[in-house]
Amino acid sequence: MMDAAGIGALEDYLHRQIPLSAAMQVSVRFASAESVVLHAPLEPNINHKSTLFGGSASAIATLAAWTLLHVRLRAAEIPCHLVIQSNRMDYDRPVLGAFEARATLPDPDAWPGFLAMLVRRKRARIEAQSVLLFDGEVAGRFEGRFVALLA
Amino acid sequence: MMDAAGIGALEDYLHRQIPLSAAMQVSVRFASAESVVLHAPLEPNINHKSTLFGGSASAIATLAAWTLLHVRLRAAEIPCHLVIQSNRMDYDRPVLGAFEARATLPDPDAWPGFLAMLVRRKRARIEAQSVLLFDGEVAGRFEGRFVALLA
Repeated sequence: MMDAAGIGALEDYLHRQIPLSAAMQVSVRFASAESVVLHAPLEPNINHKSTLFGGSASAIATLAAWTLLHVRLRAAEIPCHLVIQSNRMDYDRPVLGAFEARATLPDPDAWPGFLAMLVRRKRARIEAQSVLLFDGEVAGRFEGRFVALLA
Repeated sequence: MMDAAGIGALEDYLHRQIPLSAAMQVSVRFASAESVVLHAPLEPNINHKSTLFGGSASAIATLAAWTLLHVRLRAAEIPCHLVIQSNRMDYDRPVLGAFEARATLPDPDAWPGFLAMLVRRKRARIEAQSVLLFDGEVAGRFEGRFVALLA
């Protein structure tokens, strides 16, 4: 589990490297090898119905999943680039206030094979998922496929 | 096809109602019943690799598809709320500069039935798609399912 200093540095990294995350006022609430939790207020992410804009929901879910893989790859000390290849997003209920995206691996057992493939073939794919949480309930679900390329 | 004044008003509406579209510096390039084209520069939408952040790509594709349906529903003079239910996004190639999202209906013939259902049942579903364009090539593909609710 990442301590407060590590979380602050990770949040600075996201805001600097991906300026939309600063515009969305995304903060990092928790980060470990098991999960990453990002938080954002509604105001910068609102839509015409005063609920969460679907594009913001998808963007924070993508960012949470990407950040989890980034944290894991950094811990593995394998310098690489990580980009998204495809995703699916389901919007289950309206989000009326501040919200979180919690990312996990759908299949943690795939991780060692992913790393081995990345080192051997210089390129490997992995899936990550996020749930969007509002008021203690799941408001959306994201499944993404990412590609890592050895730097 | 919408004239310059109509396009300006639509762009103002998007920036006001969905502030993330202003943060992304989205502009409306074209709008008709057949298609909507949105444009954005790379800088506010960049990632750690100096290419387009996947979350921005998905957000502008969502916004283009939503805007096309919004324009069509406004022309039909049916007051309703329009929200996204699910989407899939494929990221085909990196985007290295300003980009566009062009939305169309995958099945325009479904439109009359959609309107009839919306009036009769107060709720109806419709699909819209967007392609992400960079440097004259398709860089990503979005398919979304939207729900309209009679106001």
